[in-house]
Amino acid sequence: MKLYSYFRSSASFRVRIALNLKGLSYEYAAVHLVRNGGEQLAQTYRSIHADGLVPALEDDGQLLQQSLAIIEYLDEIHPQPPLLPGTPAGRAYARSLALQIACDIHPLNNLRVLKYLTGTLGVSDEARQQWYRHWVTTGFTSLEARLAADSRTGKLSCGDQPTLADLCLVPQVWNAQRFGIPLDAYPTIMRINDYAMTLDAFALAAPAKQPDAE
Amino acid sequence: MKLYSYFRSSASFRVRIALNLKGLSYEYAAVHLVRNGGEQLAQTYRSIHADGLVPALEDDGQLLQQSLAIIEYLDEIHPQPPLLPGTPAGRAYARSLALQIACDIHPLNNLRVLKYLTGTLGVSDEARQQWYRHWVTTGFTSLEARLAADSRTGKLSCGDQPTLADLCLVPQVWNAQRFGIPLDAYPTIMRINDYAMTLDAFALAAPAKQPDAE
Repeated sequence: MKLYSYFRSSASFRVRIALNLKGLSYEYAAVHLVRNGGEQLAQTYRSIHADGLVPALEDDGQLLQQSLAIIEYLDEIHPQPPLLPGTPAGRAYARSLALQIACDIHPLNNLRVLKYLTGTLGVSDEARQQWYRHWVTTGFTSLEARLAADSRTGKLSCGDQPTLADLCLVPQVWNAQRFGIPLDAYPTIMRINDYAMTLDAFALAAPAKQPDAE
Repeated sequence: MKLYSYFRSSASFRVRIALNLKGLSYEYAAVHLVRNGGEQLAQTYRSIHADGLVPALEDDGQLLQQSLAIIEYLDEIHPQPPLLPGTPAGRAYARSLALQIACDIHPLNNLRVLKYLTGTLGVSDEARQQWYRHWVTTGFTSLEARLAADSRTGKLSCGDQPTLADLCLVPQVWNAQRFGIPLDAYPTIMRINDYAMTLDAFALAAPAKQPDAE
């Protein structure tokens, strides 16, 4: 397996955790999203992923994209340990937590969107930071309420074993911290994050541990 | 089953198609996203979905949210007809097409984001329309290239049977048309959309056919 990744990309971070949890070794192909005006725009990577987005996973002659689709694929071909709960309702719950991050927070705050805000719309750095904070705060407030109220919450989002929900939560927390967002208002999220980061699969997937870390 | 839906919500539209394809009857609970400053913000719906977002599905005492999680749930509890291809790689491909829309296009263009652009950032209506068009164009250009090049493309996104990919594609096309985005540059997307709309499950899920349509 070969993972096209950028150390700071939180979508790449999700897939790195999944690969670690499954105990799968893989080749790390760094695609730098900032250097040289965006190495991901280079023709070579465009032949791998037409949009120039990371991550992409090469496996068995297939080129897969979209982090959640890649993680579901890994979970299907290497079922142990499972990354989703054992019942349809449990899986729907775990997936909904993951999608709250992957659809309702992350797409609004990724690099290409922040660039559009300052570049095309000409908003100030302060307004861009407020935009970032607004979507994290909105999303985390909802997520915190769900996690704090739900009896399924354990050491992690769905019980004590890592699920797709945690694979999205931890990189989003990392990203929010990087942008200096105060996270005191989200004690359940932070408790889950801090516990997850004691596990090797999460800790070794962190941006600072990647070969392309700066 | 009870579906909390808004006729114009493209995420609700996705779930309505899934329910129709599975032949499941359901109660339609309309949640109006615009009237009275957003009926979804009313306390009653907040007890169903804390974020006030649609759709939500009530089934068997469970309250499910996030359209893709709901659709995967429906596919697990009512496997026929399947909404994903039969192989892990095929499923990853269908999910990646769906997520390209659900993560890379739709979240940037939904109501709360457009409101933030004009309300909080004070961008002009024209700049808001350009924003909308930018993300549709970026996403559809990529999707068109994938669908036009992939041998799995049939009458629909993955062969001739409806999959999760089509359940996302058709509502996104509807949404783009509503905003007056020219779609001539996406002949494969439009061919798939037009064929899908000849199928009852899609046609009857369309916004204009819903009880709360205006």
